[in-house]
Amino acid sequence: MTAVVDTDFVGELSSLFGRKAVFDSAVLSSLSIDRSGWEPEGSPVAVVFAESTGDVSALLKAAGRFGVPVVTRGAGTGLSGGAVARSGEVVLSLERMNSIVELSEQDQVVRAQAGVITADIDSAAAEVGLRYAPDPGSVAISTIGGNIATNAGGLRCAKYGVTKDSVLGLEVVLADGRVVRTGGRTVKGVAGYDLTSLIVGSEGTLGVVTEATLRLRPAPASTDTVAAFFGSVGEAAAAASAITAAGLQPSVCELLDFACLRAIDAAEGTALSARGNAFLLVQADGAGSASEAALVEQLLEPLAAYVERSVDAQSADELVRIRRGALPALERLGRVLIEDVAVPRSQLGPMTDRIERIADAHGVTVATMAHAGDGNLHPIFVVPSGEIPAEVWTAAGEVFGAALEFGGTLTGEHGVGLLKKQWLGDEIGSEVGELMHGIKAVFDPRGILNPGKALPTR
Amino acid sequence: MTAVVDTDFVGELSSLFGRKAVFDSAVLSSLSIDRSGWEPEGSPVAVVFAESTGDVSALLKAAGRFGVPVVTRGAGTGLSGGAVARSGEVVLSLERMNSIVELSEQDQVVRAQAGVITADIDSAAAEVGLRYAPDPGSVAISTIGGNIATNAGGLRCAKYGVTKDSVLGLEVVLADGRVVRTGGRTVKGVAGYDLTSLIVGSEGTLGVVTEATLRLRPAPASTDTVAAFFGSVGEAAAAASAITAAGLQPSVCELLDFACLRAIDAAEGTALSARGNAFLLVQADGAGSASEAALVEQLLEPLAAYVERSVDAQSADELVRIRRGALPALERLGRVLIEDVAVPRSQLGPMTDRIERIADAHGVTVATMAHAGDGNLHPIFVVPSGEIPAEVWTAAGEVFGAALEFGGTLTGEHGVGLLKKQWLGDEIGSEVGELMHGIKAVFDPRGILNPGKALPTR
Repeated sequence: MTAVVDTDFVGELSSLFGRKAVFDSAVLSSLSIDRSGWEPEGSPVAVVFAESTGDVSALLKAAGRFGVPVVTRGAGTGLSGGAVARSGEVVLSLERMNSIVELSEQDQVVRAQAGVITADIDSAAAEVGLRYAPDPGSVAISTIGGNIATNAGGLRCAKYGVTKDSVLGLEVVLADGRVVRTGGRTVKGVAGYDLTSLIVGSEGTLGVVTEATLRLRPAPASTDTVAAFFGSVGEAAAAASAITAAGLQPSVCELLDFACLRAIDAAEGTALSARGNAFLLVQADGAGSASEAALVEQLLEPLAAYVERSVDAQSADELVRIRRGALPALERLGRVLIEDVAVPRSQLGPMTDRIERIADAHGVTVATMAHAGDGNLHPIFVVPSGEIPAEVWTAAGEVFGAALEFGGTLTGEHGVGLLKKQWLGDEIGSEVGELMHGIKAVFDPRGILNPGKALPTR
Repeated sequence: MTAVVDTDFVGELSSLFGRKAVFDSAVLSSLSIDRSGWEPEGSPVAVVFAESTGDVSALLKAAGRFGVPVVTRGAGTGLSGGAVARSGEVVLSLERMNSIVELSEQDQVVRAQAGVITADIDSAAAEVGLRYAPDPGSVAISTIGGNIATNAGGLRCAKYGVTKDSVLGLEVVLADGRVVRTGGRTVKGVAGYDLTSLIVGSEGTLGVVTEATLRLRPAPASTDTVAAFFGSVGEAAAAASAITAAGLQPSVCELLDFACLRAIDAAEGTALSARGNAFLLVQADGAGSASEAALVEQLLEPLAAYVERSVDAQSADELVRIRRGALPALERLGRVLIEDVAVPRSQLGPMTDRIERIADAHGVTVATMAHAGDGNLHPIFVVPSGEIPAEVWTAAGEVFGAALEFGGTLTGEHGVGLLKKQWLGDEIGSEVGELMHGIKAVFDPRGILNPGKALPTR
């Protein structure tokens, strides 16, 4: 399909941005997708590599004049199609806006441009004994702007919350090119509506976040790790619930099912699946981490087939590596569709059961990993390369339905993007959907910011 | 001043609500104010004591038909005039909607109607070993609905965050009487815009919150308390910064200045002001609390005139009582105007200095207490009973200006209400103010929900 390109708009981009505007078709096609597997029809008009907030403002003004939709992207690691760019749209890449503007040890805040890789923020913080707590699985390759767009979670959010909980303020370019600031650099503040929290998770549909002021936290005095293998995923889920019920507050509580363990064994030549049918990784951090980890170990002993507590940093790393290895291992088996439901914590076990039954009923392959401490499950459908077959979408739809039935949500941390739009209305209802569309119209009356994403179809 | 009361509207309220609608002038005047000291002109039309979400919906529908503004209130403990009701308005009291609907130990969530006293939620949680973390100073007398309206903070938010951080979902009655739910009961969720966080802190201007689903946390295994007296408030502020800089994460870090100590001595016959000119209260909680408190004590020893670590629950209570006694003691000295600025944590010392200089320059009495761990200061202007004199407002305005100059905010946790409207634009700017007004119009196109509060004057 050939897009109808407005040659005046192309000329405008060239004159405004020179070599920062790219029209090469290979670049366009590589920057019109994310990791969701969604294949857009056609190709966007151009990619503009913004190098400053001024560039972003200039692009939005031009796009507004020509009525061209703008799809903002960071590293393109999103899993829901939020950064997919289609025919007639222009891609705004923030990857060159990758400076840490300021890091204040005393205020425990960092100001970073949107294109900074999230792990680089954490590394910079570590140099002064601090930490950026949110650690999505993609932390080494995703940008803070992308994390903000989806309100990304991660492993440590069991204790430290999601991206939103660490964002104090934003610099945002509005649809008409004006630059505003929301929030601030104080840890508390209630001056007017909380636009910062509104924009976090809005997937580039309300404005373009160019810079964020983020809360840092002290790096914990110590971290202790416990891992256990169980007879079944249900037993592992029950053990995770038992940890919660015992009043323990692990910083990490991650579950892998048998399919994950088998995939890791295949990829790495390990024999994890011989040790049990499900795996739980628990970390405690802070001044009391050793005693908390000891309590976790004691609590897991009677429930698990095998329990191991780290004795040093190296043995802890080995346990964490099991969890970190699961997704890469699954990706070696074929194409993956990574889902992201969350349920109330008590429903973790029933939900894992239900996922297995849905997969069996449709004859599809699914492996489940979960941020068990949060009730956030990632059922990962594995298919041969190529198109996602219809039965996988049917099964995914049933998984979403089950999550709602258990009092949960379609998406815990990956966002709605394009992939979950069709189910979103089932969760939020039409009245709430209309309020969201109303807010969208306030921020973006001409509808040029990432249209068709994040909100339910009207 | 006699309000022009629409007799048809009065008739409608009587027929809809019977004895739940009250027109008695003594009741009206007692329920048209909060604790801000703001005296409204005239008197509202009526107070409706809603007993159900259906009542709230019926009132909003009627108010919409007659174009009568609705001022929702909980216990009226607000400090910024957010619940002040004026001539021609109707008061919606939620104090009878005071049931805890559900408490799930396994999911660590509680569902409470808006009129439940916040301390009652914490008590109910405590019965199953859990805790509702936010503890505003008013926790024993304020309602959860009021806490949500202002996004209230408290002492423990140094570690556990403000009200917003504990709200998972809301039941909200919209301006036209429709009932919607936002968020859910999972600890994570990114399905569409975060309307829950938008409504928290919106001071009853976007909808009426009738029920909230709140996150509970495990009660900490132990709590340890350290208190210290210092030669000056600057030294106490520096000590608070040193605790932060050392990577410690106290659950409570509270500062009182000399004027607070003297007021407590006058009220309670103590001799605190003989022990130092400023006071710092620090608590650590969780599995490592004893070792953290020991580190705090060690760190404070060389900085303070006197340091004390609790040896048991009783000695801890005595130290906490010093902090809790400050506001009641100041209220015995006259009428108080309680301000609520927040600054980046490094600016706590400079800000306390500046407050003293402003007070001296205008010859007004100010006592400052601070949630030092958050950089949130409460300068409390004390005046004889009666009107707040002009020089106090001038001094307060300069304090707000100083907070902005130091990179802070007008209000850390009390909200804007009526009192801070005139300064709000200085903080957020006109573009952001217009976005807020746009959102207000989406939720409340006829402008009947608490009009004239929370947002900047246009």
